[in-house]
Amino acid sequence: MTTAEIHPDVEATAEAIASMEIRGAATIAGAAADALHTQATQSTATTTDDFRQEMHAAAKRLHETRPTAVSLPNCLRYIVGRIEGDTVDALRRSTITAATEFSTQLETAQEDLGAVGANRLRDGDTVMTHCHSTDALSCIKAAHARGIELSAIVKETRPRKQGHITAAELRELGIPVTLIVDGAAGRYLDETDHVLVGADSIAADGAVINKIGTRSLAVTARERDTPIVVAAQTVKLDPATLSGHTVEIEYRDESEVISEDERAEIGDIAVRNPAFDVTPPRYVDAIVTERGQFPPESIVTLMRELFGEQTATPWEGE
Amino acid sequence: MTTAEIHPDVEATAEAIASMEIRGAATIAGAAADALHTQATQSTATTTDDFRQEMHAAAKRLHETRPTAVSLPNCLRYIVGRIEGDTVDALRRSTITAATEFSTQLETAQEDLGAVGANRLRDGDTVMTHCHSTDALSCIKAAHARGIELSAIVKETRPRKQGHITAAELRELGIPVTLIVDGAAGRYLDETDHVLVGADSIAADGAVINKIGTRSLAVTARERDTPIVVAAQTVKLDPATLSGHTVEIEYRDESEVISEDERAEIGDIAVRNPAFDVTPPRYVDAIVTERGQFPPESIVTLMRELFGEQTATPWEGE
Amino acid sequence: MTTAEIHPDVEATAEAIASMEIRGAATIAGAAADALHTQATQSTATTTDDFRQEMHAAAKRLHETRPTAVSLPNCLRYIVGRIEGDTVDALRRSTITAATEFSTQLETAQEDLGAVGANRLRDGDTVMTHCHSTDALSCIKAAHARGIELSAIVKETRPRKQGHITAAELRELGIPVTLIVDGAAGRYLDETDHVLVGADSIAADGAVINKIGTRSLAVTARERDTPIVVAAQTVKLDPATLSGHTVEIEYRDESEVISEDERAEIGDIAVRNPAFDVTPPRYVDAIVTERGQFPPESIVTLMRELFGEQTATPWEGE
Amino acid sequence: MTTAEIHPDVEATAEAIASMEIRGAATIAGAAADALHTQATQSTATTTDDFRQEMHAAAKRLHETRPTAVSLPNCLRYIVGRIEGDTVDALRRSTITAATEFSTQLETAQEDLGAVGANRLRDGDTVMTHCHSTDALSCIKAAHARGIELSAIVKETRPRKQGHITAAELRELGIPVTLIVDGAAGRYLDETDHVLVGADSIAADGAVINKIGTRSLAVTARERDTPIVVAAQTVKLDPATLSGHTVEIEYRDESEVISEDERAEIGDIAVRNPAFDVTPPRYVDAIVTERGQFPPESIVTLMRELFGEQTATPWEGE
Amino acid sequence: MTTAEIHPDVEATAEAIASMEIRGAATIAGAAADALHTQATQSTATTTDDFRQEMHAAAKRLHETRPTAVSLPNCLRYIVGRIEGDTVDALRRSTITAATEFSTQLETAQEDLGAVGANRLRDGDTVMTHCHSTDALSCIKAAHARGIELSAIVKETRPRKQGHITAAELRELGIPVTLIVDGAAGRYLDETDHVLVGADSIAADGAVINKIGTRSLAVTARERDTPIVVAAQTVKLDPATLSGHTVEIEYRDESEVISEDERAEIGDIAVRNPAFDVTPPRYVDAIVTERGQFPPESIVTLMRELFGEQTATPWEGE
Amino acid sequence: MTTAEIHPDVEATAEAIASMEIRGAATIAGAAADALHTQATQSTATTTDDFRQEMHAAAKRLHETRPTAVSLPNCLRYIVGRIEGDTVDALRRSTITAATEFSTQLETAQEDLGAVGANRLRDGDTVMTHCHSTDALSCIKAAHARGIELSAIVKETRPRKQGHITAAELRELGIPVTLIVDGAAGRYLDETDHVLVGADSIAADGAVINKIGTRSLAVTARERDTPIVVAAQTVKLDPATLSGHTVEIEYRDESEVISEDERAEIGDIAVRNPAFDVTPPRYVDAIVTERGQFPPESIVTLMRELFGEQTATPWEGE
Repeated sequence: MTTAEIHPDVEATAEAIASMEIRGAATIAGAAADALHTQATQSTATTTDDFRQEMHAAAKRLHETRPTAVSLPNCLRYIVGRIEGDTVDALRRSTITAATEFSTQLETAQEDLGAVGANRLRDGDTVMTHCHSTDALSCIKAAHARGIELSAIVKETRPRKQGHITAAELRELGIPVTLIVDGAAGRYLDETDHVLVGADSIAADGAVINKIGTRSLAVTARERDTPIVVAAQTVKLDPATLSGHTVEIEYRDESEVISEDERAEIGDIAVRNPAFDVTPPRYVDAIVTERGQFPPESIVTLMRELFGEQTATPWEGE
Repeated sequence: MTTAEIHPDVEATAEAIASMEIRGAATIAGAAADALHTQATQSTATTTDDFRQEMHAAAKRLHETRPTAVSLPNCLRYIVGRIEGDTVDALRRSTITAATEFSTQLETAQEDLGAVGANRLRDGDTVMTHCHSTDALSCIKAAHARGIELSAIVKETRPRKQGHITAAELRELGIPVTLIVDGAAGRYLDETDHVLVGADSIAADGAVINKIGTRSLAVTARERDTPIVVAAQTVKLDPATLSGHTVEIEYRDESEVISEDERAEIGDIAVRNPAFDVTPPRYVDAIVTERGQFPPESIVTLMRELFGEQTATPWEGE
Repeated sequence: MTTAEIHPDVEATAEAIASMEIRGAATIAGAAADALHTQATQSTATTTDDFRQEMHAAAKRLHETRPTAVSLPNCLRYIVGRIEGDTVDALRRSTITAATEFSTQLETAQEDLGAVGANRLRDGDTVMTHCHSTDALSCIKAAHARGIELSAIVKETRPRKQGHITAAELRELGIPVTLIVDGAAGRYLDETDHVLVGADSIAADGAVINKIGTRSLAVTARERDTPIVVAAQTVKLDPATLSGHTVEIEYRDESEVISEDERAEIGDIAVRNPAFDVTPPRYVDAIVTERGQFPPESIVTLMRELFGEQTATPWEGE
Repeated sequence: MTTAEIHPDVEATAEAIASMEIRGAATIAGAAADALHTQATQSTATTTDDFRQEMHAAAKRLHETRPTAVSLPNCLRYIVGRIEGDTVDALRRSTITAATEFSTQLETAQEDLGAVGANRLRDGDTVMTHCHSTDALSCIKAAHARGIELSAIVKETRPRKQGHITAAELRELGIPVTLIVDGAAGRYLDETDHVLVGADSIAADGAVINKIGTRSLAVTARERDTPIVVAAQTVKLDPATLSGHTVEIEYRDESEVISEDERAEIGDIAVRNPAFDVTPPRYVDAIVTERGQFPPESIVTLMRELFGEQTATPWEGE
Repeated sequence: MTTAEIHPDVEATAEAIASMEIRGAATIAGAAADALHTQATQSTATTTDDFRQEMHAAAKRLHETRPTAVSLPNCLRYIVGRIEGDTVDALRRSTITAATEFSTQLETAQEDLGAVGANRLRDGDTVMTHCHSTDALSCIKAAHARGIELSAIVKETRPRKQGHITAAELRELGIPVTLIVDGAAGRYLDETDHVLVGADSIAADGAVINKIGTRSLAVTARERDTPIVVAAQTVKLDPATLSGHTVEIEYRDESEVISEDERAEIGDIAVRNPAFDVTPPRYVDAIVTERGQFPPESIVTLMRELFGEQTATPWEGE
Repeated sequence: MTTAEIHPDVEATAEAIASMEIRGAATIAGAAADALHTQATQSTATTTDDFRQEMHAAAKRLHETRPTAVSLPNCLRYIVGRIEGDTVDALRRSTITAATEFSTQLETAQEDLGAVGANRLRDGDTVMTHCHSTDALSCIKAAHARGIELSAIVKETRPRKQGHITAAELRELGIPVTLIVDGAAGRYLDETDHVLVGADSIAADGAVINKIGTRSLAVTARERDTPIVVAAQTVKLDPATLSGHTVEIEYRDESEVISEDERAEIGDIAVRNPAFDVTPPRYVDAIVTERGQFPPESIVTLMRELFGEQTATPWEGE
């Protein structure tokens, strides 16, 4: 298999992903889909075995560039899992169809998701946000575009205060915004109709991996019976978790938490800065995707439908 | 009664409290106790009625300087409630005894409380703190002084990041400190043996009023079955709540939450900055005071013992 | 002891209570206090033993008229428990003092309680009520009298729809009322700031015995984190429960649940109509009495203070 | 498409549904299936495009008669989503097959569902019911028919007391019935083995929309660990909720809650009479349908299988 | 159908299962698959009807040997549900394919499941076990084989102390084991990262039927937020529960609980020895199977995929 | 003080306690009370200071024999805390009174407690027991003696199976007993009306220290809303916990958990055998003592009343 020809465009895409020239969950997935499309179109394979080997080699090459980027394997699984046919031509056609399908859906996914999420919102509702999520904002924007009047309580979301970005975007739309520190969320939940957050990734056991602080927010929201909705395109579903893999939480630089001056004054302490935490499905009311809304306990069904049930990745094992 | 003579020293103390020259829960209470001591010592009253009127007038004068400062009424109630006797002399003696008793206890209260709290800590334990509380620190320091090895996870506590003060003080003692943002508390609770916080005040229904974020921390800690302990001298017990009064939450300036530059960039949004929140007793495992530890549901008994059961304040109604 | 003289007025009161000519918790307690006062005043006993025997005989006679009426034993225990002295005169004086004290407090208890409960209410609050409780209404009335603007959601409270009485009384005050069926309470809890109910009696383990439906309301309110407050004069505290006795729940006539016509149409079914249910303390935030507010877990302390700790009733065992 | 011919029988059915001549979830769905069957059989379309346009037009016409009736869109989605083929004939055949399939399943759905629900019941069990649900009763009847001895605790279900209908039907079967007011449910849950209710509709996020009072019952049942089972034919699954739509709760006339006489006596108050409430999936143990039982969190999978995953309705968008 | 020829080998297998010569969930399922394979291979049927009748008769014969063994019906349903084709040959081929598929998967199921479960474990983790489950151990072994360092807390699991077997097997691998009595589990959950148990069977409503004591362990683990994972091959999924059937719990001999000597000393008491209990899905974090991990609320989807949605068993009803 | 004369009888008692000749909570407390009685009676002190020194020395000597035996300090605190007067005679008399009071109460404590606990039980109730507690049995016996018909579900309580003793004693009374393994408790809680256990000691924060397995039982009972009652004489209240001290849990020999033969077969594993666990007050409904019943959150009030509020032990600090 190692001799299978990888098209130079695929190689170029792989390098661009590896060097982080291409970045962002959706952008990476789109580039990978294009690359497989190219590989299929340009393939000179003459046997079905050769064609498959080429596609698998391309998928593998792309995958190894960023093995932990969740959108990459699910793009690859989506396309490779749909390659079928008895002739090279049939294989090629099915590959192209799958790659095109994936790209088309990806293009409108955020807007489609926004339309679904907006259906949960009603005139006069107040939404609480955590961090900055374009998927979550897409729901608010869609509702706003329909003339639904909303207001927002925006948690600043330490350490990087991405809540400020959310606040600025909502303000631009003319949505009334109240900014609070993270610790004040509990106090404002009784004025909140929906907690609406995004996701870094979603696991097969229904757990939501999202910006640090999400879990506490969800636990506290459940205690007050305020619904918590996670907005996440299906590129955020992590197919590796179908086979039990857990998500490695990234630790970021301590300078995000404490400035050099503050540090100098305090002296020798440790600073820990985990980027994400894990919210179990029992604290989430619904996951809103471009393919509709799901209880978190059911998202595994959508994952299997989109990415296959194989516990092994489909381009391995030959 | 209005003609009752208030001693100039009492008047001076009242003015100093009103102008916030005298500030801080314990300092205010100590000054008020001294003032009543002086009033009793210097009183020239010749009838028991006159003496009582003088003491009540002095108490009233002191009380009206800062009607919401919790330590003030409980000092006054403690002393006025213990004035008893059939002669001016007996009244004076009982007043002086009560004022001295109160002052003496106040002086060692934090240390006594620390000794009680330290008894809950064991070698190798990790304590999570919120905000900066000298009562809470007193427990850690007492344990540390006994040679108990502790480590601390310190929440920075936005907006004012008083966690940095806590971190610096613990570091000075040589206690290993890990600083985290508030949202990361949930992630570190499984490495935490005790959540230990102070209190701004404690209500008769067992609720703990403390720095914003305490309630979320307590809810999340309970979800993981990590005990939450509140360290609070009895001057923090709010006798007004015996008669159902609730605590008015102070809102602080928005500049604590967002800088002018940040604000300019975002534009026209509201910022809310409540200083405290209210944690119901069901999320607190114990309140540690200088008179021992109590389940929060029992603190009302201590309040009644110290400050009387009267729903009306004892210096009113004449 | 059986020869101890019971005063004819005491006998008359006993008969009036037994025949239910005298009824209602507060009225019964007041009559019993008056009777003991009379017995003490009129006693011709010449030894302290004789005096005590007379008082015990009078208490016993009164108690046996309605052994399950909760206010009766607590009146008797309050007074008999305070009889003390070394001479007949001293015994008489202490009895009269206790009886007078009890009566005086009883007279203003509902108003005093209302003042305490009103302290929990704030401008703009919405209160949900269950059944008809003059103690609960006293809190709303006191707040209303202070100019606090409230609105009320009134559960009709099947089977007897006492909510209609509550609705009419609140309407008379000019408080906006929304009437709902009992099953709709959950739907309206998110618009409710306080659930405020009365009590038939309160047990030493902190349980609240109140109109059927209270427990479900409390469980549902807790699920939404809406505070539930029980307004109950101390005559509702059941001293028999100090020694572990549980409260026997009364079953009322099925005609309250179903009319004869409805019954005829349905045919042979059983109908059960328990008057009360038992709410455990963990679902109650505070009990408001004329002596201040208490967490339900602490009410035992007030019971012991008022009625003594003896597990046996004080007029027995001679 | 607007020129597509709608068959007169379809038009007649549409009018009968609109005028509520045809009513009831199952009856409406059956009539709509028959109408599409007729449209397909009688179509004179000569191109596949024309045939599809006709079917979509017919579906659209039927749908707009009662846009909020949940059984209508799921019937239409079921059939239109199964139209497939490359020739008019193939399209017609697939349409007829789907319409027939739908009708056949509908006919036996309640009985099939009853057989599934009965499998959960055992000799000697006591079932608590809320409101009157023929789906829920079908389970009890099926169990009864198998000789399983059951007894029932029937909540009267204010305001319309449909519990009386349930009581009468169960009595007719010879099942011992105990009628209680709604507030007494908590008291009788410890004698209950299953809470068994129907549904007005079921949402994709697993929420159960049912007669007001269901949510409180479910919350209380969960607190006592009594399983709560919802019996609902698949025509109750609301496909609009797949795309995030929430269910609009109907408010009914206040005369159901309070008679004119009662009203006159009380005076000017508001009365609110919501017909339904929403029970989140975490308080439901199983949903019993004619296609088997499901945890509420999985019902979305059945919805997608039956009615398609499209967030847009399949007869739109041309 | 009664005249349909059952192959002598099928008959022999049936007898061996009935006599418990063949026993164990996987062994029974494997033997049944082989039997159906033989029946299909050796069938002399000349019409498709005859072939189907033969296969159904064989399935029925096998099923009736141990109607409560969960792996038997799911094997039979898997294969019979996949018989399809228009000719005897096609039917035969599809049968053989399904039987082979089933057998192949069965063979590696435990190892595949182990690989999935191992993905949840990390270096330094402590696992708590209950009873002895080869599926659960397969996860630990797989992790151990990858060099992940684990330690185990092993509950002895009265009455039969199968924990001793678990302890011995883990010890053999060199994994540090701490043995505790069942009542001590709560005490050791704060040192536990995963509770990992097997299952006797799993129901469509997500309930896990497993060795007595599992439910208490799961409830207690949830209270401390320790994840509980159930390892179960898909042969443990009970297809009868799709149609609402509940699992009959076996009661075992009292001699397992109490020896004759102990019994003689105590005298005439009852002893109850249920073998299993039922853990609701809300206390389980994930079910690990050879086809990946699932939230328990989603396992119904896998059951329907593998065994069909029919509420009736596929070999009945002819 | 060191020169203060300790009476030889006190010394003898101290030695007997130290050598465990005198053992058992009540027996130790009784012996200590007798010793202080003797010391007071026989004291030859001529000044009040000398008398106090003698009593303190005696208390200290007794205390140091078994510093962790909970009944010892509470006996000593009870008596020493009640020594008062201005003359040696008065001191002596108050000491003797206190010692006699303590002894008298101790003598009937278990029976008094039984009478209180019995008041919670009703005809037909089923009680579940854990371990063997004479305090818990005293409640059952008292109820039985009154003719209340009870039945019992007895957990065997590994490792020492003290449930067998409980079973034998109940059987002797003619109470129907069902013996189960510990893991089966959850399964039988739905047939249980009361969980009734004893206590090793009770802490000021309301926590109950009792035989390992109590906490799990309480958590599971709460999940099913079955009340859990702790029967404990006041000698079980641990006064050291008033000042925050926590209870050291004893670890017992591993031979209780595993026999030598079993051990030999398994090989090199660790065995942990903690004797007790700690149940937080939120899982306990009532503590039944000889002085009545208390919510666990209120027991601190009784502790302070009996043993004083001093955080330091009263015989120290001179």
